[in-house]
Amino acid sequence: MPKVTQEHLDARRKEILDGARRAFAEHGYEGATVARLEEATGLSRGAIFHYFENKNDLFVELAFDMNTRFGDLLLESGLDAAFRALTAENPEWLAVLIETESRMRHDEDFVKRLTTKAADAGPRIQEWFQREQDEGRLRADVEWIELGRFVTSVLNGLALRVAGGDPFDIEAMLVLLNDAIRPQA
Amino acid sequence: MPKVTQEHLDARRKEILDGARRAFAEHGYEGATVARLEEATGLSRGAIFHYFENKNDLFVELAFDMNTRFGDLLLESGLDAAFRALTAENPEWLAVLIETESRMRHDEDFVKRLTTKAADAGPRIQEWFQREQDEGRLRADVEWIELGRFVTSVLNGLALRVAGGDPFDIEAMLVLLNDAIRPQA
Repeated sequence: MPKVTQEHLDARRKEILDGARRAFAEHGYEGATVARLEEATGLSRGAIFHYFENKNDLFVELAFDMNTRFGDLLLESGLDAAFRALTAENPEWLAVLIETESRMRHDEDFVKRLTTKAADAGPRIQEWFQREQDEGRLRADVEWIELGRFVTSVLNGLALRVAGGDPFDIEAMLVLLNDAIRPQA
Repeated sequence: MPKVTQEHLDARRKEILDGARRAFAEHGYEGATVARLEEATGLSRGAIFHYFENKNDLFVELAFDMNTRFGDLLLESGLDAAFRALTAENPEWLAVLIETESRMRHDEDFVKRLTTKAADAGPRIQEWFQREQDEGRLRADVEWIELGRFVTSVLNGLALRVAGGDPFDIEAMLVLLNDAIRPQA
C-alpha cells in the first residue's frame, strides 16, 4: 500500500522539521547539535539523516517552508492574514532564521539550494501582485514588482522587530501598508 | 593647547573607525582579526586599543554611528534624504551590521552598551515624529509612535534587501512610504 507509506514518510518528515525548528529556536543554528536535534525530535541521528542530508539541509527546508507558508497564506487568505500570521511567529525562531539566512547568503551552496527550492514559490507571489494590480486592487501608478518589493521589505522589517522583541501594533502597520499600496480612494 | 589635542584624538578615532568598518565589511565580524584591523587602519594594535577597549567596543561604536547618522539626516534633511543615504550604504557593511547586531542581541553586555549609547539618539527621532504629526505633516489617525515603528521597519527591510544584493527602486519605495504616513490628500 504505497499511499500509507507515503503518508507515513511525510508525517515523519514533518515531525523532524518541527523538532528541528524548536531546537534551532532554543539553541541557535550552531548550538543545535546533533544530540539536541535527537532530543527535540525524539528520533535517532540515523532516522533524522535518513530524511535530510545534514543540518544545513534541515535549515534550508525550514527557511523554505516559511516562504511557502507566506505564499500560501497570501494566495488563500490575503495580505493582512499573511502578515498577521508571520508576525505572530515565535520570536526566537524568527531571530535564528534571519540571522542564519543572512549569514548563509555568503555561502554559495546554501544560496543555490534555497534558490532552487524557492523557484516554485517566487512566481506564485509575483503572479499574485500582477493579478491584484490588473484587477484594480493595487495602485496602478507604481509597477507591481516594486509594490511586491515594498511589501516584502515591510514584512522583513517587522520580522526583525519581532525577533528583537520590539513592540508594534500590527493593525496600525496593516492600515499604513494598505494605504501605501492600494488605489487612492 | 588642549583644543588641538582633542582634534587630533577625534581624527585618530575616526581613522580607526573607518578602517574597522572596511575590515568588518570585507571579512565579517569574526574574520576581522586584530592583524586585519591593524592592516585596515594602518595603526598598531596598541594604538587601536588605546582608543577602544576591544573589537566588540569598535563594533558597538560603528553600529551606534549608523543610528546617529540616520537621526542627523532625518532632522537636518528629512525622511527621503535619510532613506536615500542609508540604502546607498556599502552592501557588505550593511550585511555584517545586520547579521552581527542581530546575533549580539542575545548578548546582555552588547545590548547594555548599545542601549546606553542609543539613549541619546532615540528621543531625538521620537521628537521628530511627534512634531511632524503635531504640525500636520504626518497623518493624525495613527499614533506617531506607530508611524515611527513603520518607518523603521521599512528602513530595516530595505537595508536587508541592500545587504542581500536584491534590487529595488528607491524612488518608488519613497512614494509608497510617504503615501502611507502623510495626511491623505
